[in-house]
Amino acid sequence: MAAYAGIDLGGTNIKVGLFSQDMAILDQSSCRTEVEKGFHRVIGQMADSVRMLCERSGVALGDVRGVGIGCPGPVDTQAGLVVVAPNFPGWRDLPVRDALRRALGGTPTVLENDANVAAYGEFRAGVGRGYRSLAMITLGTGIGCGIVIDGRIHRGATDTAGELGHVTVHWGGRPCGCGRRGCLEPYASATGTVRRFRDALASGRSSIVTENGLSEEAITAKDIFEAAANGDALAWEIVDETVRYLAIGCDVMVNLVDPDIIVLTGGMIAAGDLLMKPLEKYAREMFFPRPKASTRLALTALGGDAGIIGAGFCAQDSFGTSAS
Amino acid sequence: MAAYAGIDLGGTNIKVGLFSQDMAILDQSSCRTEVEKGFHRVIGQMADSVRMLCERSGVALGDVRGVGIGCPGPVDTQAGLVVVAPNFPGWRDLPVRDALRRALGGTPTVLENDANVAAYGEFRAGVGRGYRSLAMITLGTGIGCGIVIDGRIHRGATDTAGELGHVTVHWGGRPCGCGRRGCLEPYASATGTVRRFRDALASGRSSIVTENGLSEEAITAKDIFEAAANGDALAWEIVDETVRYLAIGCDVMVNLVDPDIIVLTGGMIAAGDLLMKPLEKYAREMFFPRPKASTRLALTALGGDAGIIGAGFCAQDSFGTSAS
Repeated sequence: MAAYAGIDLGGTNIKVGLFSQDMAILDQSSCRTEVEKGFHRVIGQMADSVRMLCERSGVALGDVRGVGIGCPGPVDTQAGLVVVAPNFPGWRDLPVRDALRRALGGTPTVLENDANVAAYGEFRAGVGRGYRSLAMITLGTGIGCGIVIDGRIHRGATDTAGELGHVTVHWGGRPCGCGRRGCLEPYASATGTVRRFRDALASGRSSIVTENGLSEEAITAKDIFEAAANGDALAWEIVDETVRYLAIGCDVMVNLVDPDIIVLTGGMIAAGDLLMKPLEKYAREMFFPRPKASTRLALTALGGDAGIIGAGFCAQDSFGTSAS
Repeated sequence: MAAYAGIDLGGTNIKVGLFSQDMAILDQSSCRTEVEKGFHRVIGQMADSVRMLCERSGVALGDVRGVGIGCPGPVDTQAGLVVVAPNFPGWRDLPVRDALRRALGGTPTVLENDANVAAYGEFRAGVGRGYRSLAMITLGTGIGCGIVIDGRIHRGATDTAGELGHVTVHWGGRPCGCGRRGCLEPYASATGTVRRFRDALASGRSSIVTENGLSEEAITAKDIFEAAANGDALAWEIVDETVRYLAIGCDVMVNLVDPDIIVLTGGMIAAGDLLMKPLEKYAREMFFPRPKASTRLALTALGGDAGIIGAGFCAQDSFGTSAS
């Protein structure tokens, strides 16, 4: 029986899924990424996870037709390299694809950017099923984004497509982790939301978030969204600004790429309606008439599993019997 | 002998090209768009131009396998409608495609957005030849944009893709013709450049542009670029800002779509190196490493003919003998 494996390589966890020939999930695992032990240890962790899932499912490693890996940061899909990975200190132009292939006794392996893989998973098996194009935006520490056009991952000419977090929305505005100013990320990410909130506190504003005894350093985006839901004026203001900028991000996506559906995922979507209701309102106010009427905004259906599922589909596309 | 016609329907002129089977240009024409005489007159003008070119080239109308039309404004390519056309008062959901087909005795006709058609012309026969993807930015009264991905026009789910002029680059900034604020268009278009220059004059700044006797109303972007080249401080400042915003537009395009090449066209490219040299500098300062190294910025090779050539190729793609 043919099988496929999908790996979501994160700075915190390595998630792995094993899939049947028809892409039903057989088993999955998660372990802490031992990034401090270096590149070869991380490759070993991925290989061990695949072998362990095979054993648990009674699948011979030789029956695994292919492995897909979603890796953070810019990747070189042709060469199978992770170019730079922000949460993997010192990782630069590392041959993740070929190293894993060797560690798995020559099992065919394909490498993709993690945001692209998650978008593809959602497109094939989640809320994007049945559409022709999709953009998925991950709202977390940063802003990730993957794009699927006409059923295929859109990597762009230099594997740079989908860097929504670094489109300029406010020239000369807040500093971004990328070294520039005014990118979407410092406005609409969870980290950016916390930072704007702290800046407001530092300027003398008050909020129930800290009146409840929470130290400024410990504040999370969740605390701010909760305080906003409880009527805290400052928290509401900050959340409202986050959502308005996120609407700009959706609008930029529609104005350039114009996908059928924009899917949101990442830690910040735990805010649910507090995020989605105003986002629907602000985004549709901005959209031109045709996308205003038909472009769908939705929350992920696959959640944290989108990455392993998308990576599994990438493996099937590349190495399945019907692969072109 | 099979032939194809390509039409560039503009608010000022109707340009038409007649092409041989292998897309060599046989003849071309241009006439003033009699938009004031209404929809049927404009359809008649397009049909008359095609017939006239056929006669002049000794091509029977029956040998014209297909006609492509590039139309301004949002178009519905499926239904063949011009949805709204800013320079055609009252044009709304008009069946341009089917009306022209009837006026040409049933000749197969295909409708596309004008910016998309021009981008496709440049991709097939201009500076974009040999690449897989291209974005073309038209700098004129507004900012037009067409995108080609993997060799095909990228229309998007709602025919809205490529609205680069209306991505937000400065939230809450200058008003845009679309009714919103902070779009790229009021910063980087020729009209926006003139408006920012006039605003600076109104605020008390001085410039050789008006000291030479030119009235404020008569100032064009060309005058401002020329004054900048001649060392006028205010003109230089305004031009510099235009180019910086245009660099942001290129960067947004790279960050979302990541094409092989970005081509500039439109009236403002007459400024030549005064535009391209600082644009190269500012854009590459913004780009991420891989596009910084490889994404090409270039001026159009086809100029004002990109539209008719692209429309001709659209006709060939849709109705040629080898059409899929």
